[in-house]
Amino acid sequence: MNLNMKAFIRALGVLMMIMGATMVLPLIVSVMYHESHTALSFIGTIIPTSAIGLILYRKVIPAQNAMTVRDGYLTVSVCWILASLISAIPFVLSGAIPNIFDAFFECSSSLTTTGASALSDVESLPQGILFWRAFTNWLGGMGILVFAAAVLPSLGINANILAATEAPGPTMDKIKPKISDSAKNLYIIYTIFTVAEIILLMLAGMNIFDAATHTFGSVGTGGFSNYNNSIAHFNSAPIEMIITAFMILSGVNFNLYFYSFKRQGGIRNLLADEEFKVYIIIIAVVSALISVNLWLSHTYQSWGQAFRFSIFQTASILTTTGSVSADYDFWPTFSKMLIFTLMFIGGCSSSTAGGVKVVRFLVIFKLIIRSIQVRLHPNAIISIKINDKKLSIDTVSEIANFMFLHILVVAVSTLIVSLDGYDIITNFSAVLTCIGNIGPGFNLVGPSMNFSIFSNAVKFLLSFVMLAGRLELYAFIVLFMPRFWQQNK
Amino acid sequence: MNLNMKAFIRALGVLMMIMGATMVLPLIVSVMYHESHTALSFIGTIIPTSAIGLILYRKVIPAQNAMTVRDGYLTVSVCWILASLISAIPFVLSGAIPNIFDAFFECSSSLTTTGASALSDVESLPQGILFWRAFTNWLGGMGILVFAAAVLPSLGINANILAATEAPGPTMDKIKPKISDSAKNLYIIYTIFTVAEIILLMLAGMNIFDAATHTFGSVGTGGFSNYNNSIAHFNSAPIEMIITAFMILSGVNFNLYFYSFKRQGGIRNLLADEEFKVYIIIIAVVSALISVNLWLSHTYQSWGQAFRFSIFQTASILTTTGSVSADYDFWPTFSKMLIFTLMFIGGCSSSTAGGVKVVRFLVIFKLIIRSIQVRLHPNAIISIKINDKKLSIDTVSEIANFMFLHILVVAVSTLIVSLDGYDIITNFSAVLTCIGNIGPGFNLVGPSMNFSIFSNAVKFLLSFVMLAGRLELYAFIVLFMPRFWQQNK
Repeated sequence: MNLNMKAFIRALGVLMMIMGATMVLPLIVSVMYHESHTALSFIGTIIPTSAIGLILYRKVIPAQNAMTVRDGYLTVSVCWILASLISAIPFVLSGAIPNIFDAFFECSSSLTTTGASALSDVESLPQGILFWRAFTNWLGGMGILVFAAAVLPSLGINANILAATEAPGPTMDKIKPKISDSAKNLYIIYTIFTVAEIILLMLAGMNIFDAATHTFGSVGTGGFSNYNNSIAHFNSAPIEMIITAFMILSGVNFNLYFYSFKRQGGIRNLLADEEFKVYIIIIAVVSALISVNLWLSHTYQSWGQAFRFSIFQTASILTTTGSVSADYDFWPTFSKMLIFTLMFIGGCSSSTAGGVKVVRFLVIFKLIIRSIQVRLHPNAIISIKINDKKLSIDTVSEIANFMFLHILVVAVSTLIVSLDGYDIITNFSAVLTCIGNIGPGFNLVGPSMNFSIFSNAVKFLLSFVMLAGRLELYAFIVLFMPRFWQQNK
Repeated sequence: MNLNMKAFIRALGVLMMIMGATMVLPLIVSVMYHESHTALSFIGTIIPTSAIGLILYRKVIPAQNAMTVRDGYLTVSVCWILASLISAIPFVLSGAIPNIFDAFFECSSSLTTTGASALSDVESLPQGILFWRAFTNWLGGMGILVFAAAVLPSLGINANILAATEAPGPTMDKIKPKISDSAKNLYIIYTIFTVAEIILLMLAGMNIFDAATHTFGSVGTGGFSNYNNSIAHFNSAPIEMIITAFMILSGVNFNLYFYSFKRQGGIRNLLADEEFKVYIIIIAVVSALISVNLWLSHTYQSWGQAFRFSIFQTASILTTTGSVSADYDFWPTFSKMLIFTLMFIGGCSSSTAGGVKVVRFLVIFKLIIRSIQVRLHPNAIISIKINDKKLSIDTVSEIANFMFLHILVVAVSTLIVSLDGYDIITNFSAVLTCIGNIGPGFNLVGPSMNFSIFSNAVKFLLSFVMLAGRLELYAFIVLFMPRFWQQNK
């Protein structure tokens, strides 16, 4: 089957129109802050982007709207790369980030909700640029194409395939509504969270600009802050608690919220979900262990402080937000190892969080337990269940294969990154934090450091690692298979 | 089904007799070197061990010889722990290693062919002790129970189950001869290698004692040396090349040798084996990459030196020998990362090498490729083949599950080891080198360091990690399952 190139190009056109439209917001912010130079660089991006997008959308009419899985992979991958490139233009034009590799890194980091930065000093940037940086974090949280599906249900393009490719985590939901309905419902919850957090942060003393940007960062689990010290800048326990709560809320399966509160039972449905339970248990156990470790090692003066910093960092890393209220790189090794472990896991499936996802680890853990039981009772037939529902062999092996691919990509990327010559922990944690869409790593890319140390080539690779991680690897990886490009297959 | 306790105890008796008998050799060495104190400590171990062993073997007669899989796991695990404990007695009695945790660590390290040491200065030890340390390395190489099956075919115990539990790597061989025959054949090859290497090392200038101990270390892929600087002590290219060759030979599937040279075709059968091919390719590619990296980074003065040290360390780590001719911890990060990667892989199945084994990685790699192909062609049915033989779903999932269990054990152990407070790379590489039965790690447990830094508790844990790694995890892990100890199951 040949690629449906016209549908592909038309989808790019739609994306360009959306990107143009979303940039009106940071343009308004620039104007409000009298940043004429920044405003001009937004205008200089909006006009050509929207114009080209409109032309492509109007002029390229595919003979048929049907897209194959292959079309889906190509469209989604290229859309994300293009979105990162377009987002980068105002950074370069305004001179905020003159190096195109840095700007591309910053924007793929933002859109994939990674929140890793190659900037040493964000506070010196214009407000319009800072707003755009945070807003793309928010846009990326739910997926730019799910967004497209929500706002433009009559795209003339099979949005199902696109959204499925973009969805974070394996789907084992009972609910499979029409993608445009589902996308709308998810955006309603996303918007409620956003408005609620902005209000609460303002009540806790933030100005509206800071409240908005930090809400974009936490609800989207991106974690970009407009302060060099991230959340530590505020040194406020109430602010940290509000952000902790919203990070945890955003790391939950959004479909689960929708499903739980639409049916009888409400919160009891939520608590009955295995992935949700394990997610909460991980946060509770890890933050408790870290608290005890921090307290016993006298890292902080009081039990209260130990807990305050422990729960924030635990939630921030598990939900792949990557906001920082304390530099965990100075914690004792046991706590650092726990943070490292969290970096592998990530949030729940169908949340705004990145990473491998809790449910996959749950399935793998059940596989391990089963394999031990089978050793003792070789003839026993034990099935893997999630929420009392038996998983098919295909689902289980898909999850296992994903894990192996994930490990392979991490290993190969770390090897390439190590050509820059930094230490192993720096390289390994850089790749891990990028593929998991987290943000900070350890050592030279630790919470108080940034990615500016790396060469352009490595930053370019890491940008792709972030994108590959956000799209759960396959959409990107298949493009590198020669077979993908063979005609008539 | 209840445990066959009598058969279990009788097997322990056999093991004790064997351990007592093997200690006669280091006793002779002690006498030859006029080390009367050491000789006495061997006599003080041999007499009670053999006596108790003989009594158990004579007096505990099981009603039936049949052993279940459960009996097999219990017997093999306890035998290895007991063998490590018995081996440790002369160390403690002679005062060579007064701390029992250190002695147990040293002996489980030796028997599992890990070759990690908790000693800062081995050169100060008596010759008898050094010989015993090296000889247990050799004994452990082929497995003490395979050894038992070879020398005592009429054990009165079902040796098949024991040897299967102890066998390194998944079995996908065409040949499944009777275990005692197979064990004999393997020991013939093992002995040929041993004699050949001793002669070659003596021709290269070693005295007979050094030639024997270093042969035990390389043929058994244990890597214990009686010099603090390991092979670097000799600073001799010919010696390094001989040892490199025998490490590589010992990392190959011993059944494959037997099979290849018994049938028409000889070496061509060897080259047709997929695991063998990949094993050779890994050695070639990694040592080439490291050579180039070492040369370009000016780590060594000439291309020749870069290659000499590269191939030795590559072979040493991949075959899980852990002998050292150059401290790779001072190499550039790219080379270190490659060494790190090798630590995961290990040698071929049914070799004396430890680790996850090449064939498992090969299967996982094929799984990953298949999973990518399936994304493009969802209805395609692609089977995983090794040597053109289709693997069953059970075999593939067993391999996948082993990988996950391996990763879980590494993660949990690293977390516990980190309570000692050292850095992440030290802890992680310590666990990795122990579970893979390699020897040296990185940083504080790097090639020129040792494991004496750790607390007794951590050394005890790492001793068990080595044993668990040698027995491919399951034999040990099942003992910790409550279900294992339930009667009538």
